[in-house]
Amino acid sequence: MSIEFIESHRCFSGALHFCRHQSEATGTPMRFSAYVPDGEGPFPVVTFLSGLTCTEENFTVKAGAYRRASALNLVVIAPDTSPRGEGVANDPAYDLGQGAGFYVDATEAPWAPHFRMESYIAKDLQQVVAENFPVDMKRQGITGHSMGGHGALTLALKYPDLFRSVSAFAPIVSPTRCPWGEKAFNAYLGADRETWKAHDATLLIEAGAAKGHYETILVDQGGADNFLEAQLKPELLEEACAKVGQKLVLRMHPGHDHSYYFIQTFIDDHLAFHAATLLAA
Amino acid sequence: MSIEFIESHRCFSGALHFCRHQSEATGTPMRFSAYVPDGEGPFPVVTFLSGLTCTEENFTVKAGAYRRASALNLVVIAPDTSPRGEGVANDPAYDLGQGAGFYVDATEAPWAPHFRMESYIAKDLQQVVAENFPVDMKRQGITGHSMGGHGALTLALKYPDLFRSVSAFAPIVSPTRCPWGEKAFNAYLGADRETWKAHDATLLIEAGAAKGHYETILVDQGGADNFLEAQLKPELLEEACAKVGQKLVLRMHPGHDHSYYFIQTFIDDHLAFHAATLLAA
Repeated sequence: MSIEFIESHRCFSGALHFCRHQSEATGTPMRFSAYVPDGEGPFPVVTFLSGLTCTEENFTVKAGAYRRASALNLVVIAPDTSPRGEGVANDPAYDLGQGAGFYVDATEAPWAPHFRMESYIAKDLQQVVAENFPVDMKRQGITGHSMGGHGALTLALKYPDLFRSVSAFAPIVSPTRCPWGEKAFNAYLGADRETWKAHDATLLIEAGAAKGHYETILVDQGGADNFLEAQLKPELLEEACAKVGQKLVLRMHPGHDHSYYFIQTFIDDHLAFHAATLLAA
Repeated sequence: MSIEFIESHRCFSGALHFCRHQSEATGTPMRFSAYVPDGEGPFPVVTFLSGLTCTEENFTVKAGAYRRASALNLVVIAPDTSPRGEGVANDPAYDLGQGAGFYVDATEAPWAPHFRMESYIAKDLQQVVAENFPVDMKRQGITGHSMGGHGALTLALKYPDLFRSVSAFAPIVSPTRCPWGEKAFNAYLGADRETWKAHDATLLIEAGAAKGHYETILVDQGGADNFLEAQLKPELLEEACAKVGQKLVLRMHPGHDHSYYFIQTFIDDHLAFHAATLLAA
C-alpha cells in the first residue's frame, strides 16, 4: 500500500510524520500521523482515535504524547476521524458526517459508500502501518477520546486478535443510549436498533465479547466534563464490567473537562499502561 | 487593571486560563494565556513570547509545557504577538502587522498608535499578571521562539530589573542583519538604522547591556531549521557573547526544524533552567 509523507518533524528522540494513503475501505485518501522513535524496532504500536470534529492533527498537536512515547519506544498512530473530500457525503452538524465517522461501517444512504471507518481502522490502517514503519503488529494497543474512546473500546472488543491493551479518555461508553450515538447510528446503520448493538462497548462487554482477553481496561474521565451525564455515562461501563467480571480502572478527575488539557494531563499514564502490557513477554 | 477570563481548563495540578484585558500601551484589548499551579504561591513567572503568525494560543496548545510547569510550580504566561482588531493597522504579509509585532514600540505611521508591544510586555502585562495571579514578580524569567526569541533576549537585556533569567528557542538574534528584522524595523521604527540598535540583542550585548546580570543565556536551535542561515544566525550571538564574556549555552540539535515539535522537545529543559535561577535565594 503506497504512502505519501506530507511532512515530517524531528520530535524528542524520534520523528513525527503526517501521512496520506488511498484507502480501499473508504474509497478516499486518508490521513494519519505516526510518531516513530529512533532505532530499528520493531516497536509496539498504540493507536489513538480522536473525537468529534477532529482530524489527525488534534491529538498530534495538542496531546503532548511524544515525550513519553519516545522514552517508552512506542509508535503512536493517530488517524483522521472520517473520510473527507468533495465526493463524500456530509452534514452541516458537527456530530454527523465528515469529522464524525464513529468508527463503524455505514450501511445507509448517503453514507454507505465511504463511511467505513471500522474497516479502515481494522484493515487498511493496519496494513499501511505494518508496511511502512518498524512496528511489531503483534504488540498493539488502542485508545481514544470521546467518540474515539467509543471507537477504541468497541474495536478492541471486536478485534482481540489485533489488540492486547485498551484504554480510553472520556469515552462514549454506550452509543445506543446517548444522543450523539443514537443520531449517528440511526444515520449510518439505520433505524433497526438490533444492528446497533454490535457497536456499543457496554453491550459488547455484557455479551461476553473478548472475555478474558484484556486484563484491565483503563478509563479516565473528567468530573467537570460538560458531556458527562448526557453523553458519556461511564457508570454504564462500570456496571457492565462488574456484571461479567471485567476489571476496569475508572478514574474520575474532579475539575477536569473534555478538552485536550485533560488528555495531556493523563496521556503519560495511558502510554505507560499500554507499554506495561505490550512490552511484557 | 480589570481582566476577563475567557475560558479556563484544569491541566495537570493547576489551571490554564485564557484572558483578555484592555492595554493602555496598545490602546486595544489584548489576550494572553496563564498557567497557574494549585496553591497559594507566590510562584515565579516565566513568560513565553511567540513567533510570527502566532497568537497566545500556539504555545499554549502546542508546547506541552504545563506538565513541567506544574511540577516546578511555575506560572507560565503566553501573550499574543501584536495588537489586533478592525481599527488596527495591518499588512497582507505574514511578517508585518498583526501577528508580527516584533516586541518594539513603533514610531512610524500607520503602526505607531497601536503597535507598542515593548511597552505592553514590560508594563501592562506586568501589571495585569501581578494583580490577578499568585505571583512573585521579583522572580521572573523570559523566553520565546523566533521573533519571540528576539523579544525575550532584547527585553531581558533592556529590563534587567524585571527579569532574572532568559532563554530562547531559535531566536532572531540580530534583527538589524536579517530580512525579517530589516523589514519590520524599517516599517515600525523608520529608515534610520541608528534607532534599530536598541532592539538588536546581539548589538545590545556588545554594547554592554545588562552586563553581569544573567549568569547564563540558554539558546536551543534546530540544525534543520529552514530559517537558520538567512534569518536566525546564532553565530552572531555567539560572537557577541564571547566578546564581552557573557556565558551562552547554545545547543545545536541536528534534524530539528522551526516547529513546535522542536519546542516541545526542549521546553522542559528551559523551564528547569529558569526554575534553577528563579527558585534560588
